[in-house]
Amino acid sequence: MNFDYRYFFEPKSIAVIGASNNETKLGHQVFKNLLSYKGKVFPVNVKEESIMGVKAYKTIKDIQDEIDLSVIVVPKPAVKQAVIESGEKGAKGIIIITAGFGETGERGKEEERELVRVAHDYGMRVIGPNCVGVMNTKIDLNATFIEKAKKGSVTFISQSGALGGGIVYKTIKENIGFAKFVSVGNMSDVDFSDLIEYFSRDPDTASILLYLEGVKSGKRFLEVLKEHSKEKPIIALKGGIYSTGARAVSSHTGSIAGNAEIFMTALKQGGAIKAKTIDEALSMARSFTQPLPKGKRVGVITNAGGAGVLISDLIEENGLEMSKLKDETISYLSSFLPPMASLKNPIDMIASATGNDYYRATKALLKDDDVDIIIESCVVPTFGGMTRTEHAEGIVKAINESEVKKPILAMFMAGDISEDAKRFLESNGIPTYERPEDVVSATRALYSFSLISSKNR
Amino acid sequence: MNFDYRYFFEPKSIAVIGASNNETKLGHQVFKNLLSYKGKVFPVNVKEESIMGVKAYKTIKDIQDEIDLSVIVVPKPAVKQAVIESGEKGAKGIIIITAGFGETGERGKEEERELVRVAHDYGMRVIGPNCVGVMNTKIDLNATFIEKAKKGSVTFISQSGALGGGIVYKTIKENIGFAKFVSVGNMSDVDFSDLIEYFSRDPDTASILLYLEGVKSGKRFLEVLKEHSKEKPIIALKGGIYSTGARAVSSHTGSIAGNAEIFMTALKQGGAIKAKTIDEALSMARSFTQPLPKGKRVGVITNAGGAGVLISDLIEENGLEMSKLKDETISYLSSFLPPMASLKNPIDMIASATGNDYYRATKALLKDDDVDIIIESCVVPTFGGMTRTEHAEGIVKAINESEVKKPILAMFMAGDISEDAKRFLESNGIPTYERPEDVVSATRALYSFSLISSKNR
Repeated sequence: MNFDYRYFFEPKSIAVIGASNNETKLGHQVFKNLLSYKGKVFPVNVKEESIMGVKAYKTIKDIQDEIDLSVIVVPKPAVKQAVIESGEKGAKGIIIITAGFGETGERGKEEERELVRVAHDYGMRVIGPNCVGVMNTKIDLNATFIEKAKKGSVTFISQSGALGGGIVYKTIKENIGFAKFVSVGNMSDVDFSDLIEYFSRDPDTASILLYLEGVKSGKRFLEVLKEHSKEKPIIALKGGIYSTGARAVSSHTGSIAGNAEIFMTALKQGGAIKAKTIDEALSMARSFTQPLPKGKRVGVITNAGGAGVLISDLIEENGLEMSKLKDETISYLSSFLPPMASLKNPIDMIASATGNDYYRATKALLKDDDVDIIIESCVVPTFGGMTRTEHAEGIVKAINESEVKKPILAMFMAGDISEDAKRFLESNGIPTYERPEDVVSATRALYSFSLISSKNR
Repeated sequence: MNFDYRYFFEPKSIAVIGASNNETKLGHQVFKNLLSYKGKVFPVNVKEESIMGVKAYKTIKDIQDEIDLSVIVVPKPAVKQAVIESGEKGAKGIIIITAGFGETGERGKEEERELVRVAHDYGMRVIGPNCVGVMNTKIDLNATFIEKAKKGSVTFISQSGALGGGIVYKTIKENIGFAKFVSVGNMSDVDFSDLIEYFSRDPDTASILLYLEGVKSGKRFLEVLKEHSKEKPIIALKGGIYSTGARAVSSHTGSIAGNAEIFMTALKQGGAIKAKTIDEALSMARSFTQPLPKGKRVGVITNAGGAGVLISDLIEENGLEMSKLKDETISYLSSFLPPMASLKNPIDMIASATGNDYYRATKALLKDDDVDIIIESCVVPTFGGMTRTEHAEGIVKAINESEVKKPILAMFMAGDISEDAKRFLESNGIPTYERPEDVVSATRALYSFSLISSKNR
């Protein structure tokens, strides 16, 4: 079924069926979140004259304008009628937020299938049911009942609505952004495969992050992965790897986790990059604002020996390599670093390192052909009259002056003291991390994708 | 050498040799941090009449009062004289913050040994050199040049000063506290073994967290570990596990990482609980405000299926077990949870779960003899008129009403939305986490220590 997914992610007009003035209802929150959207948004409510001061319609069919997207948040018994009327109105996309379908058992599954049959008859496609909705941060579209995510380069598709929502709130706090967010719910119709196909062509999506528990058609999923994982990095966090987790899956989204081992192998065969934790997944996905590395040799700059040690350990553990720096690099470093500094990789410039030291060391590693990837570690709070951003500024200056482009990732660890520097780096496109394991996972993801991607070159 | 370590951690009087009015000097920051200390604090500076408005002394010997602790932050060439004069004055403990000794090579090592010989001649003991200093948060003692850590139950001993400092700043941001913080620097004299002996008897220390790269006397370290790891949980994060990391260690704190494999085996033999990352170490160490579990069967309560799935996976991966709940527990849960809830462990109460649901489910698991440890997962932001703290309040109410004491750990994940609930739980002694892997690591640590500890019963 040929379908333009922009009806979901760039709708010109939206009807919220079940919009409510009652603040404790999800339909209130969804409509409130959509009020600031630049497209037209219409509340539909059988009882109310107006919702939050906006004229309400008894049914979607009473709306004069054309409707691209119908968001359904009515109680379960009223969902089918809302789908039918959306079809009669000529809506294109449907998001069913209402729960109580396939996740409750066989009967719910059949009801769900019926909804999809009706929708397809009208040429509509369905996201959900039992989902949180979708976001497109670039155009401030928030068709969910949760807070809008920050803007970013990663598109996040979550099979768990609540977990997905929790992750959105987590990223807001941690200043991490998403391009799009999709809670797919029970995947009665639109599924991972459809969305991967769409987002792999989306210029605002640098990488696709999946939280997945199971898929409906494993064969198609593998085909889609294989086709698109070369174009765009696909990071997969799989829930339900062990038997207890898998049992929990079946009662959660109504999908079958299946044999997790086979699933994990399929992810690998398909070219997805597997993540073990939420933070690893986010760290990996955020790295793709950087150019791909030519190899796996990492140069590490730090102002804290201990951080250099931990990063070095992790680089080895992750199958990457610490670069052996060229003699001229070491000799240049020795020209300005103090005798207590360590010139071997990791380059420990010690706590007194200034922004200018970061600038010069970064320049040296950009020049050194034996360095494929650079990790900038800055742990120590500012002392001795240093500004909080001078290290970050030194790094960006070196990048801007260099003709050689290499991936650079930063780990700035000192809590609030590092916030200004992190913001400065992020605003210059450098992904920042707070933990050794996160920056190294991100490094590994860049390297992994450079191998997957290059197969096709 | 018999020594009362309270001279370091509860000094009645402190001299800061190298206190400075120049804000760019570490000696300024150290003195400033000590100004609010309830004990007497004296600035020593050869040139100035006063430091920050406090009368300064040319030498420590000019101070009339007795001195328990001498903190030395003068430039390297003046350190030896400062040690001698501290001895002549009758100081008991010395912290040498100044760097440039053992970490720079053989000559520095010899200079360091000479300082310790002098100190010992006067009956003094030395922390450092090349260190950040010490903190005792309970009495607001901050004898370092960094911000004071928050109050907590964990005593943190770090071999890397800069990384240790970075971790302190990180914990301040994340609302994690320490009882004591010690940056041991080059460990020219006072080392991990001395401090473990002391802190294992410290009633304010619930657990000891070590960041270590290498030790001077492996034999004594193993003996001390074996003796004290049964009394108090000792969590060890080892830097320099792989060859590159180990090479970085040697140029960092001047210690030899040695054969990491042997070292890791020794940690295990000694009864230390090994952590792989900073966050894992912190998560584990913070769990010991809870009673020890009788077994490894975990009951998980959640309002987000996906979180339950991820936690279940991790429980299995960490060698723990998901409890098989008793029939009466499941039957009781079914009496108040909606049909969409999942009553098997993990108990997914779905997003609509209220504080009262958490209260009842927690009570049920406290009662169920087949549950040894409880994980409370709360992911979903508040909806439908729920308050932000009602879930946390329900949990605490259940604990307070129960005669059975079981360890309870909480994972509240939704960023800022969860902050109030986390604070409420922490203020009631329940450790809180934001990531599935952190809460499960903490669970594993509690179980591990229950085995180590019970060997001795």
